[in-house]
Amino acid sequence: PNYYRRASFNSYQSNTSDEDMVEIAGANMDFSLTDDVPPLDRELQDGTVTGTGMNCGTKLMDFLDEPIPGVGTYEDFNTIDWVREKSRDRDRHREITSKSKESLWALIKSLSDAFSGWLVMLLVGLMAGAIAGLIDMVAHWMTDLKEGVCLVGFWFNHEHCCWTSDEMTFEQRDNCPQWKSWSELFIDQSEGAGAYILNYFMYVGWALTFAFLAVSLVRVFAPYACGSGIPEIKTILSGFIIRGYLGKWTLIIKTVTLVLAVSSGLSLGKEGPLVHVACCCGNIVCHLFTKYRRNEAKRREVLSAAAAAGVSVAFGAPIGGVLFSLEEVSYYFPLKTLWRSFFAALVAAFTLRSINPFGNSRLVLFYVEFHSPWHLLELVPFILLGIFGGLWGAFFIRANIAWCRKRKTTRLGKYPVLEVLTVTALTAIVAFPNDYTKMSTSGLISELFNDCGLLDSSQLCDYVNDVNSTKAVDDLPDRAAGKGVYAAIWQLALALVFKIVITIFTFGMKVPSGLFIPSMAVGAIAGRLLGIGMEQLAYYHHDWLIFKGWCGPGADCITPGLYAMVGAAACLGGVTRMTVSLVVIMFELTGGLEYIVPLMAAVMTSKWVSDAIGREGIYEAHIRLNGYPFLEAKEEFTHRTLAMDVMRPRRCDPPLTCFTQDGMKVEDVETIISETTYSGFPVVVSKESQRLVGFVLRRDLIISIESGRKRQDGIVSTSLIYFTEHCPVQPPNSPAPLKLRSVLDLCPFTVTDHTPMEIVVDIFRKLGLRQCLVTHNGRLLGIVTKKDILKHIAQMANQDPDSIMFN
Amino acid sequence: PNYYRRASFNSYQSNTSDEDMVEIAGANMDFSLTDDVPPLDRELQDGTVTGTGMNCGTKLMDFLDEPIPGVGTYEDFNTIDWVREKSRDRDRHREITSKSKESLWALIKSLSDAFSGWLVMLLVGLMAGAIAGLIDMVAHWMTDLKEGVCLVGFWFNHEHCCWTSDEMTFEQRDNCPQWKSWSELFIDQSEGAGAYILNYFMYVGWALTFAFLAVSLVRVFAPYACGSGIPEIKTILSGFIIRGYLGKWTLIIKTVTLVLAVSSGLSLGKEGPLVHVACCCGNIVCHLFTKYRRNEAKRREVLSAAAAAGVSVAFGAPIGGVLFSLEEVSYYFPLKTLWRSFFAALVAAFTLRSINPFGNSRLVLFYVEFHSPWHLLELVPFILLGIFGGLWGAFFIRANIAWCRKRKTTRLGKYPVLEVLTVTALTAIVAFPNDYTKMSTSGLISELFNDCGLLDSSQLCDYVNDVNSTKAVDDLPDRAAGKGVYAAIWQLALALVFKIVITIFTFGMKVPSGLFIPSMAVGAIAGRLLGIGMEQLAYYHHDWLIFKGWCGPGADCITPGLYAMVGAAACLGGVTRMTVSLVVIMFELTGGLEYIVPLMAAVMTSKWVSDAIGREGIYEAHIRLNGYPFLEAKEEFTHRTLAMDVMRPRRCDPPLTCFTQDGMKVEDVETIISETTYSGFPVVVSKESQRLVGFVLRRDLIISIESGRKRQDGIVSTSLIYFTEHCPVQPPNSPAPLKLRSVLDLCPFTVTDHTPMEIVVDIFRKLGLRQCLVTHNGRLLGIVTKKDILKHIAQMANQDPDSIMFN
Repeated sequence: PNYYRRASFNSYQSNTSDEDMVEIAGANMDFSLTDDVPPLDRELQDGTVTGTGMNCGTKLMDFLDEPIPGVGTYEDFNTIDWVREKSRDRDRHREITSKSKESLWALIKSLSDAFSGWLVMLLVGLMAGAIAGLIDMVAHWMTDLKEGVCLVGFWFNHEHCCWTSDEMTFEQRDNCPQWKSWSELFIDQSEGAGAYILNYFMYVGWALTFAFLAVSLVRVFAPYACGSGIPEIKTILSGFIIRGYLGKWTLIIKTVTLVLAVSSGLSLGKEGPLVHVACCCGNIVCHLFTKYRRNEAKRREVLSAAAAAGVSVAFGAPIGGVLFSLEEVSYYFPLKTLWRSFFAALVAAFTLRSINPFGNSRLVLFYVEFHSPWHLLELVPFILLGIFGGLWGAFFIRANIAWCRKRKTTRLGKYPVLEVLTVTALTAIVAFPNDYTKMSTSGLISELFNDCGLLDSSQLCDYVNDVNSTKAVDDLPDRAAGKGVYAAIWQLALALVFKIVITIFTFGMKVPSGLFIPSMAVGAIAGRLLGIGMEQLAYYHHDWLIFKGWCGPGADCITPGLYAMVGAAACLGGVTRMTVSLVVIMFELTGGLEYIVPLMAAVMTSKWVSDAIGREGIYEAHIRLNGYPFLEAKEEFTHRTLAMDVMRPRRCDPPLTCFTQDGMKVEDVETIISETTYSGFPVVVSKESQRLVGFVLRRDLIISIESGRKRQDGIVSTSLIYFTEHCPVQPPNSPAPLKLRSVLDLCPFTVTDHTPMEIVVDIFRKLGLRQCLVTHNGRLLGIVTKKDILKHIAQMANQDPDSIMFN
Repeated sequence: PNYYRRASFNSYQSNTSDEDMVEIAGANMDFSLTDDVPPLDRELQDGTVTGTGMNCGTKLMDFLDEPIPGVGTYEDFNTIDWVREKSRDRDRHREITSKSKESLWALIKSLSDAFSGWLVMLLVGLMAGAIAGLIDMVAHWMTDLKEGVCLVGFWFNHEHCCWTSDEMTFEQRDNCPQWKSWSELFIDQSEGAGAYILNYFMYVGWALTFAFLAVSLVRVFAPYACGSGIPEIKTILSGFIIRGYLGKWTLIIKTVTLVLAVSSGLSLGKEGPLVHVACCCGNIVCHLFTKYRRNEAKRREVLSAAAAAGVSVAFGAPIGGVLFSLEEVSYYFPLKTLWRSFFAALVAAFTLRSINPFGNSRLVLFYVEFHSPWHLLELVPFILLGIFGGLWGAFFIRANIAWCRKRKTTRLGKYPVLEVLTVTALTAIVAFPNDYTKMSTSGLISELFNDCGLLDSSQLCDYVNDVNSTKAVDDLPDRAAGKGVYAAIWQLALALVFKIVITIFTFGMKVPSGLFIPSMAVGAIAGRLLGIGMEQLAYYHHDWLIFKGWCGPGADCITPGLYAMVGAAACLGGVTRMTVSLVVIMFELTGGLEYIVPLMAAVMTSKWVSDAIGREGIYEAHIRLNGYPFLEAKEEFTHRTLAMDVMRPRRCDPPLTCFTQDGMKVEDVETIISETTYSGFPVVVSKESQRLVGFVLRRDLIISIESGRKRQDGIVSTSLIYFTEHCPVQPPNSPAPLKLRSVLDLCPFTVTDHTPMEIVVDIFRKLGLRQCLVTHNGRLLGIVTKKDILKHIAQMANQDPDSIMFN
């Protein structure tokens, strides 16, 4: 029979039911059946169920018509199958390309399809830029509203109100007649205890009003609008469906409440939420284009780019935004997306610049003008700052997660409005007396980053001017600190403690809250303090060995602003564990190409220190806290388990529920569907051989059977279901068979039972699978889903495997 | 028998030979055999062949001891299996980690292992930076040597020789008494026909000498040192072995000949070769560390980072270097590599800056000092430059590939020395009379990028000074062009034509030759010409509608240097098809964050235009010309073929050569090995069932059988080979069996015959496979290798499938 075997081997294109016969008959096979099977008006029957899905090898489906609505879509809280989605898109693309040769109209359609990707990016960039500009302007105005009002027009913020004066420095702001603080307005006093108390009262009052509005709007209209949104976006981008998370309501409410939250003076930033807002824009724009609306994978490409645009407008750093999206947020980042993300990020940044919310036509948030060189020995304090940043990052993550867990598990979580109001009141009451906490956090960072010029009138620049030089800012020598600087040091130290404590309680509340700005503020304060210390040390002790040779008297050797920059980067790195993107953002932010090495030294130290204490960044920690099904792409799977240890069914469980390719009745299938909750079922040649034919999704199966019953005559409960290419001639009185090959995925991914889990995890990550079948010597054994893997990873890390939510 | 089936299904951990019995017996099986098989002193036999490979599920192999040398290594011109390599590294890592708890010494070893990655990067960065600095200095000196010599010391270049003068402008260089041109030295004349002819003669003579030395050294010592090296590095990084391509001889000879080639005045740059040099450094450093020496995948991580370091030192653009490596060169770029690449790139740049080869302590090659704003309307000429760049890029690629093909196929290729000398002589003869081609190409670009200040004495800056202003460079208004500018325009136009033509013939010769600098030069000349044109137009016609409102008289509205920058980016983009990395390199190069939008507009236009004419960039074109087995990651596979159309055996071929898991004799296996040339063989349960057990590599098999025959008693030609976990008791007089399960890959990748090729290609790309087995309903049908896929792609593109070289 060897000859026959070989024949069978070569005739692999013969139909599958024949193969089954061979299997059942064992070595004793007969080929005569093969050609007997008539095509059995296959076209007609096929037409009824031209579904979609991974139609490997079957004829091209028309996705634009989509005969059975719903086939190929996903339910809420489900994981998408990237391979299937990409396959669908390629089919769609091929059809458009092949049609384009037929008529001019089809050609135009094909061109517009090819161009729609760029159009989407343009729209996302424009929208994200415009919304960011709006948020900046309104937040600026509302922040100033806490202190006073502009008489020329209440809609002007403090800076716009005093537009006439050319140079706008810290002190001159107070000498502008058009701007009235609340005490000036109501009791016509700008000094004195009464005025102070009134201003204090107004400040706290406005803060509470804003915070209350913010938390109420979030609670009533869009519960998804709270938090930073980055953990959820990471999860969505990894291929998870959360309906409404990127919807228009979330967009509107998040935009409004973000302004309110920022203005309320809470210790939070707008950067993370801006990423969420930009992703909402991306999602909404996707709905305008069939190509992106109908395909979850394509839509995620847009979302990746939108995230880049979000960071781009948050900091005015387009390249940093793209790298942030690549390094931190995105899961699948094809190179095509890189280029488009860059485009979207640039359009967004450009739009923002045109809106010009800061009134200085600078693209970046914290422009730094100094370019003074740094000395190699200064790497020691920079590395110290890195250690501080790492320690703070690790501490913050632990404390914040502990607090959030408490919120989740105790009664605390039941009173979100009260919580927000309490924290806001505390923040406002403590912040007002201290100049450095009273001003907006980004204003504070900006001031800390700056070097002191001769004309600078801020408290931080109150140095003793013992030289009468007309040199430029860059060349100003180190000077002795004056009274103002010493006062500022105390205030900054207090501000540092306050920010460290309050941020822990703020991040995770039910208002939009970003973490970038508070982290940077903590680092900038610490850095500036160290910088001033170093500067004074160098001034008074320039004869010390460490300063000799590079820091003589009258030289400008220490730039405290640079220390603030480095500290900010270190703290941000400790919290988020970003690396390259962070350095790029920092250097775009400040325009200082020459400070990459200090920044990098600090960020690297910070990452090492914080990684040594806890592996997870804040976003991963929040993902795990919330139990999102996110398969971390950065962490290597290090355990030595095999696919058979992870797959279901387990050793003592009943065997895997699977269908046979023929011989099953509609009622059998329906029973199995109703009795189980699995999202899909493998189809095998026969129960005996367990040789795998394909995989069919529950959702597609339900829809197809329903549609078959409705549209096709003679489909009853006793109808036979065929997953084979041809079905045999039915006896005369039997009901019409239901052919379901079109919804059968003929190329399910398989691994052998001996495959190490590290490889399985790699396959899941790189290909974006939802499930994978496990075979042993060609027989179907079990199934591994993404959820199984996540549970297994949690188990191996001694965590509760049931903390993984959702399917 | 259903009950038994289920039992069989659940007992998948029982041995495999049993499963085979089940298969042969068909529905009529018997489980009694299962437990009868004794372990048969398995440990002892296993010990003899503890090889390596993807030992899925078998016990941990000790890679540090490596009992059979050679198992798990690759031959020259072979494709590596990324999954296998990564798996090996993880095993190694796990062992070190688990051992580290045992003793202090092991802990130190484990720590040093973890730290070695960073150490490697540090060394690579230091080496690449040092070599780049050396190349820069020597090339600078030798380029000047063509014109004259320094009397203070012949080892000084022109600039160092005249170090005393503070401001070093273009004209002042000639008024330095220490520097003698050859005519001054020999006939004591600096002007006149005689002096000119002597200088001309010396110029051409030196050029020919350098070129002859370069080509001879390459031919005699290291044939791999020629060309830019980037196509080959791309191929190596995609997982191909070319022994010696990154060896120490290549490094030395490439470094020396690069200096010679650059100095000879040929139209080539040092940027591409520097990437090759940096990769050589990476490869050599890898040899110092077991972790990287023994693992091809880990080594490629280092090479990716080394490529980043190469670009970083070539341009002084660390971030651009990392993005270049990510976008253009690397194939697998895990995020860990991103961070390390950045580190290596930064160390390299820092080393280069410490060496300070340009004598101006600038990190970047072409520092631009202007920051004048650009107007939105200027986007029109920028886009024109983009179109020019795209057209030039497409034209260059076609012409250069045609010429290279001619060189490959005709007798021309037999005389590389003559070819190089001819091109050098032509270049030198044509270049000398024109100031702009006589100077080094990077000097030319630098001059074209610069804006003209009031004190600038170069010909390009010979404007009519009709204003007596003391404004800074940035604010200098547009002026009428003087005689010098008009002369420069003519010279530049001639230089443009010359560069366009000669570069086609230069790139691909048997000397190290980069393409970045010549491409940028072409673009910069075109851009500068357009810029001057625009400037004069705006000056004389500032009342035109298009200039109204933003370009009044006395305003500084057009910056010709910016046009040169944009043109350079456009041309480089047209040739290489880089996008984000190019923009980042350009903006790091020039320090101009404000010019991202013009650069991007031009680069995008250039890419679109050139992509419309030909899809391939110059590197891909050269890869295809040379037939390297490179599976392009950027291009989507768009055809609708299935795995069964691509797999071997084809429909009419004899069936796939495969082994059975038991019952084969040593001599059978040896016959099959000697009769075929396949790199690996599938192992099946039995010829009849064709159910797949695993995959065994030819190389591992040969080594193991040889080793078995040598070390194990009783292994003769008639010994049975067992791939099963246990082997049955042998009859008393039969020879000892050879157990080879340890070299069997128990988790070969499989796809079904209906899998669309687009998915197969995706799997190959993302997982880095070497081969993949094709099954139908659980039976083995055929095999698809990377080469099959490449041939198939070539076939679908109507190219000769046999042009794919190597295995």
